[in-house]
Amino acid sequence: MVQYGESFIAKGIDFMAKTWITEEFDTPAVLIHRGRLQKNIEKMAEFAQMHGLALRPHIKTHKMIEIAHMQLEAGAIGITTAKIGEAEVMAAHGVRNILIAYPILGEEKLSRLAQLKTVAAVTTVIDGVAQAEALSRYALAHELQFQVLIEVDTGLKRCGVLPGQDTLSLFHQVSGLPGVEVVGIMTHAGHAYGAATPEEVVRIARQEGFDMVENAGLLRSEGLTLHQVSVGATPTVRHSGQITGVTEIRPGNYVFNDLTQIRLGVATEEQCSLRVAARIVSHPAVDRLVMDAGAKTLALDQGAHGTKGVAGFGQVLGHPELTITRLSEEHGVIQVAGPTELRVGDIIEIIPNHSCPIVNLADQVIVVDDNGKKEVWKVAARGRTS
Amino acid sequence: MVQYGESFIAKGIDFMAKTWITEEFDTPAVLIHRGRLQKNIEKMAEFAQMHGLALRPHIKTHKMIEIAHMQLEAGAIGITTAKIGEAEVMAAHGVRNILIAYPILGEEKLSRLAQLKTVAAVTTVIDGVAQAEALSRYALAHELQFQVLIEVDTGLKRCGVLPGQDTLSLFHQVSGLPGVEVVGIMTHAGHAYGAATPEEVVRIARQEGFDMVENAGLLRSEGLTLHQVSVGATPTVRHSGQITGVTEIRPGNYVFNDLTQIRLGVATEEQCSLRVAARIVSHPAVDRLVMDAGAKTLALDQGAHGTKGVAGFGQVLGHPELTITRLSEEHGVIQVAGPTELRVGDIIEIIPNHSCPIVNLADQVIVVDDNGKKEVWKVAARGRTS
Repeated sequence: MVQYGESFIAKGIDFMAKTWITEEFDTPAVLIHRGRLQKNIEKMAEFAQMHGLALRPHIKTHKMIEIAHMQLEAGAIGITTAKIGEAEVMAAHGVRNILIAYPILGEEKLSRLAQLKTVAAVTTVIDGVAQAEALSRYALAHELQFQVLIEVDTGLKRCGVLPGQDTLSLFHQVSGLPGVEVVGIMTHAGHAYGAATPEEVVRIARQEGFDMVENAGLLRSEGLTLHQVSVGATPTVRHSGQITGVTEIRPGNYVFNDLTQIRLGVATEEQCSLRVAARIVSHPAVDRLVMDAGAKTLALDQGAHGTKGVAGFGQVLGHPELTITRLSEEHGVIQVAGPTELRVGDIIEIIPNHSCPIVNLADQVIVVDDNGKKEVWKVAARGRTS
Repeated sequence: MVQYGESFIAKGIDFMAKTWITEEFDTPAVLIHRGRLQKNIEKMAEFAQMHGLALRPHIKTHKMIEIAHMQLEAGAIGITTAKIGEAEVMAAHGVRNILIAYPILGEEKLSRLAQLKTVAAVTTVIDGVAQAEALSRYALAHELQFQVLIEVDTGLKRCGVLPGQDTLSLFHQVSGLPGVEVVGIMTHAGHAYGAATPEEVVRIARQEGFDMVENAGLLRSEGLTLHQVSVGATPTVRHSGQITGVTEIRPGNYVFNDLTQIRLGVATEEQCSLRVAARIVSHPAVDRLVMDAGAKTLALDQGAHGTKGVAGFGQVLGHPELTITRLSEEHGVIQVAGPTELRVGDIIEIIPNHSCPIVNLADQVIVVDDNGKKEVWKVAARGRTS
């Protein structure tokens, strides 16, 4: 028998493992604890309300219609997506306010963006003149007006213009372009995932917030009416969101959390609402077990943006003697340090390193509540990379 | 403009990039060059025929009905899958001979296996007594007979019993179990992917082959009629398959190949039939480009089973000045060393590190031939991890 610890969530998981298996939904599988999910959603909504912030959660973590609507019902003003494809799925299911936090380029995508704007308020992102010019050309040809945020790089070094003179210069270059209206600025301080300590997370978050507020002040001094000063990443949002002048937060991962959030001191085990269930399929050596969840289920993420010092590919609940040391596509190799009661055929539950890619690998998840009710939710925007 | 080299395949890719874009199939996308794919399939079939080997390709690489049938038409005797779910999809589309190279456990999966056996010849794998006993119990209760291979560990240290006395011991323990018939032995020398040199690949492959042939001899000396002595992995199969006594090969990756095969000296760039097409979406710094293919498209694989010394997440064709240094889910960060002609909006094509997970992330691929004909193939067995 699988042994679990004595915490509330461990009992919840034990319960989940006992009830969900059917021929149709066998291991490996992604399980969601509905009560925990709801609690995570409400807690973030309360934080946003308390600080007068617009909450625009990034749905890349869950990609599910049901969860997007739970977030909106809890008070979110709209959603964030990474790609148009995700926005299309959400708009088709009633979401009417969407930030596509991505530059939109190419006639094909501009045409889809124009179509999307007929059913939802849609904002996109620029960090250079070329993207704004592409939008402007399309807008002129089709008598449209595009609303954009300028993406600012507050340290992630991915997309984004630097705060200060570079932002100002970009604003001046694009402000005369017909059909393109800059309505705000946004940033994603994802480098917080590479922080070595919880204190460093706080430092990065404050930098994120203050950089953005100063940057907004600079743009306002040049005459821009800024509606959105938008920050966000689950680890930083509780700190950057408290800085006066920030208007919007865009956390994503908080609905599920994961080992990365636990390691950063951002979430507790009890706040992790997503689990992977797997079965021990082989015990070929005393110190080695093999399970049926490999990289096709757990993904190879060991964190994000430079997360350091992670051993393994997830934590097996209730089994401190186990380390998931290697993943091939369909096999998870587990190193056993010391005695284990696990046997071939037993089911284990895992808190993954990073919950987002796990959902993207799955066509559906199994949602269980404390009353034993089970639902299957489709990952409706799965794989919408375009 | 995108600059390509002068090789045949580079021209082919240029052609592909020019023709495939539509609103429906925009970047990022997975492209397959049909002629190259067909050539890879035929070459492996010829090798098998020349050496009198049964060819049972692993379909985990492509997961597509169309390619499975191309392989069967070229002479494959059946297919290999990792999971029952993949076998179910293939059987539903006419594949009649399937090795599920995985232990099958749990009433749910045993029931599916029994169902599958009504439409196809199916063999599964054991590497311990517990799995054989589970099969035997189910077989007795449902008046069935299961055919199994014993999985042997020739160095990968994943699943598998060690060759020699351990294999013999397992055989004796399971040979009396009703409903379970051992028909052969199999191994996967995946540790060849961790080889530092092409010579090491050859050494591992020979070990794989000789270990299996000696092991088969040992079992035969104890009275077992062995139908299958099955080896396989794209890097090893041309060496292990040449050893007398090996009866079957199970390569998978050879249909597409990838940077990992190139690095191991197993494939050339011309033999890579799969590409990822992406668009440059941002140029936020002189030495940094960002493309729209991230980990959700390219996966985080930098090789497999200990591949060493890989810089980056794929090679941008025709652009030696570029290194894909970081992937977040929807962004690929590219370091630019020296001048580049690439601009925001340009499309690039990438040979990925590992083609298998890329196909598993995609719902469909775009297949292009030299005549400009374009087809969309569904990744029918995508995500079938159960």
